[in-house]
Amino acid sequence: MSLTLLAELRGAIGASHVLSDGDLSAYELDWRRRYHGKALAVVLPGSTRQVVQVMQLCAAHGASVVPQGGNTGLVGGSVPDASGTQIVLSLQRMHRVRHIDRANLTMTVEAGCVLQLAQQAAAEQDLLFPLSLAAEGSCTIGGNLATNAGGTQVLRYGNARDLCLGLEVVTAAGELWEGLTGLRKDNTGYDLRDLFIGSEGTLGIITAATMKLYPRPQARMTALAACATLDAALALLGLAQQRAGSGLTGFELMGDFALSLVRKHFPQLPRPLPPCPWTVLLEISDSESVVHAQALFEQLLESALESNLIQDAAVASSLEQSRALWQLRESIPLAQVEEGLNIKHDIALPISSIPAFVAQTDAALMAAFPGVRLVNFGHMGDGNLHYNVQAPEGVAAAGFLREHEPAVNRIVFDAVVSYQGSISAEHGIGALKRDELALRKSPVALQMMRAIKQALDPGNRLNPGRVL
Amino acid sequence: MSLTLLAELRGAIGASHVLSDGDLSAYELDWRRRYHGKALAVVLPGSTRQVVQVMQLCAAHGASVVPQGGNTGLVGGSVPDASGTQIVLSLQRMHRVRHIDRANLTMTVEAGCVLQLAQQAAAEQDLLFPLSLAAEGSCTIGGNLATNAGGTQVLRYGNARDLCLGLEVVTAAGELWEGLTGLRKDNTGYDLRDLFIGSEGTLGIITAATMKLYPRPQARMTALAACATLDAALALLGLAQQRAGSGLTGFELMGDFALSLVRKHFPQLPRPLPPCPWTVLLEISDSESVVHAQALFEQLLESALESNLIQDAAVASSLEQSRALWQLRESIPLAQVEEGLNIKHDIALPISSIPAFVAQTDAALMAAFPGVRLVNFGHMGDGNLHYNVQAPEGVAAAGFLREHEPAVNRIVFDAVVSYQGSISAEHGIGALKRDELALRKSPVALQMMRAIKQALDPGNRLNPGRVL
Repeated sequence: MSLTLLAELRGAIGASHVLSDGDLSAYELDWRRRYHGKALAVVLPGSTRQVVQVMQLCAAHGASVVPQGGNTGLVGGSVPDASGTQIVLSLQRMHRVRHIDRANLTMTVEAGCVLQLAQQAAAEQDLLFPLSLAAEGSCTIGGNLATNAGGTQVLRYGNARDLCLGLEVVTAAGELWEGLTGLRKDNTGYDLRDLFIGSEGTLGIITAATMKLYPRPQARMTALAACATLDAALALLGLAQQRAGSGLTGFELMGDFALSLVRKHFPQLPRPLPPCPWTVLLEISDSESVVHAQALFEQLLESALESNLIQDAAVASSLEQSRALWQLRESIPLAQVEEGLNIKHDIALPISSIPAFVAQTDAALMAAFPGVRLVNFGHMGDGNLHYNVQAPEGVAAAGFLREHEPAVNRIVFDAVVSYQGSISAEHGIGALKRDELALRKSPVALQMMRAIKQALDPGNRLNPGRVL
Repeated sequence: MSLTLLAELRGAIGASHVLSDGDLSAYELDWRRRYHGKALAVVLPGSTRQVVQVMQLCAAHGASVVPQGGNTGLVGGSVPDASGTQIVLSLQRMHRVRHIDRANLTMTVEAGCVLQLAQQAAAEQDLLFPLSLAAEGSCTIGGNLATNAGGTQVLRYGNARDLCLGLEVVTAAGELWEGLTGLRKDNTGYDLRDLFIGSEGTLGIITAATMKLYPRPQARMTALAACATLDAALALLGLAQQRAGSGLTGFELMGDFALSLVRKHFPQLPRPLPPCPWTVLLEISDSESVVHAQALFEQLLESALESNLIQDAAVASSLEQSRALWQLRESIPLAQVEEGLNIKHDIALPISSIPAFVAQTDAALMAAFPGVRLVNFGHMGDGNLHYNVQAPEGVAAAGFLREHEPAVNRIVFDAVVSYQGSISAEHGIGALKRDELALRKSPVALQMMRAIKQALDPGNRLNPGRVL
């Protein structure tokens, strides 16, 4: 049967776009190298019509399909299982920017378009497509939507979901839903769009999307501020929101241990401020001018100094200095890699609960694992912490993980749940957190999710074993 | 059976909260007085626990349930049918503001909370809850969410959906989903929240919600501008977005005939500008100061005058003047009522298509019905027009509607669909547009919607006959 399917797929989209031999690890191995599957074939349709054909053939043969964009996901959601029976459907060849509507401030792009190229297409029209994250050079719009990606501009522009107005989707049965509207308002029935967004390829194949664009701000300015406590950082966030309104486009938190790893492994990077318990990176986007943004920043930071919310601050005086400050923030994950394996948590909390959560969870972990080191950083303005746990100094990381990862996770997730937080803020569930989700999510919600999955993919052929 | 059900409902929530005698027209007749149903009973639970009990009893007896908030909907979605067998579940008694979290900028309110009271609760904390619409004195948060209400601040803050972070929902079977998170990021499975929002009470009963709040702007300023053409108004929108960024919180369009009805029926209202083909109301919200907002407005309008986008402008110099300008805009629906019956359309279009759509549809209607009068106004910044059709001068409105409403609708909706617009931008589907939706929506989308309805309400007991 699988040979017939392969022959039919080759007939439909061309033999050169159906890969079943050779090294397919680019499609079968996930970015963090934790999941290595084996596909029956990797198929690369070149058009929506071809995706429809592929899905109809897979439906006829009862084959499971794993949709894939840039394969940069962090939870093992985009690679096949080990059975050798699944079809990886890569959207890579569907990468066109179909249309930019300047007056409507929208852009229609195909799912395989790399995020950075979508950003560039908007910039060429002097417009802003604000979605921005570390993997932007290789992740795709389809993957961003399937996982409802977050990133560094969520505070002002929202997650991928908030940037999407319409979708084109191929269903499990191979039917085409042409939902590519560029409308800001549309109350004609259930919100299918947001159901597909974040469903990690388990409900349908997103083939294209209409996304929101914005006028490009006249200025983007960045500053670092040193806070003695998390409570002070929280108060600084409130003050910045009050003063800058929606001009505040970034509020990133960096714990001292996280920055110490950057200092250790990337000593060439600048050190604009002396070490302090918490460093905050603030970004303001301004529709008026650099001068206006600068004045706003100065007033804000002066007030914060006077109120003793911050101990010190440094405002970037050029685009280059701005980039250098962001580079500090973005070097934390890389410094962690240099330091060795660690246990990652991508959690969200009500912003007001962050200080209490961190105090309580730090203490619980240090009591359970004396000397344990906490790499704590993240998008504080969105309540999203990357709260990572590193073995004590001198303890072999691999062994620590092998022995203690479940216990560490239990402490962290118990605390997250007790503060009504989320065990996955922006990375999704995939294969990695599926069992944890089944334990942590409300049974009523899980039951509704299963009913919806059954309704839209009754054969359980779309990315089976992920999410649910 | 129905007598047993009534007795059990009385036992569960108290006899005084189960109404089955006397004048129930406040619950049975819709706001536009087009739908007059007959309920078996109106039940008014006082807590989420009681909603669970009511739903379990209704499930056990196979009774249909029509959830109701302020009963201000415009599409007949919140009143029972004529069968005398349905239970109206009014959320009126559940009107508490449960909690305001200042640092998280969220507010948790019960479904029956009147929108204006929610706004006031936020204002008392010096915060802004931006949802705002004509019915705010009597509509409720639950109804706003069930219909994904829009209103006058969508341009900046989005629809009700965009303002909601979490929901508490009772299912058709009487199970409770406690999804009241105050999280900005949460990627733990399918987006149930957005599925319930806008489902018009057909998938579950929203009993409470956690909504976003914002710092209160320091200033809100309003101006009127006169545009000779819709193309000029469109260019003005682009310029205002470029200059004011997200500070632009309102961009309302008013056609001359719409304003002429206001002049005719409310001659006491001010006339800040002489009549012109299109008048735009602009609103800027400013996080800095009145002076800053004023300077922004002056620069913007000066540029617009120089580029010939506008012929004239008037900036409100006080809060009182601002209110007067908004009153002009808000008097249009009232002036229409005075003028007599008309055929209302609540449509959305890609903003860039508005000039072409209006030119084409005006011409088609005037060719088909010589002398027909077009009341055209709406939230242009959101692409949302209230494109209403009034009988020719001297022709009896009732007769015109009786004879021509279907033909008028066909011309308008055909044009809407040809521009990839929406036949219901912010009012929803309810009973009024159910048949039209079945004709106009993609069959694949309808089929998915039906599958979801079947999955979550297999007995079709939640607001049956609405939406689908």
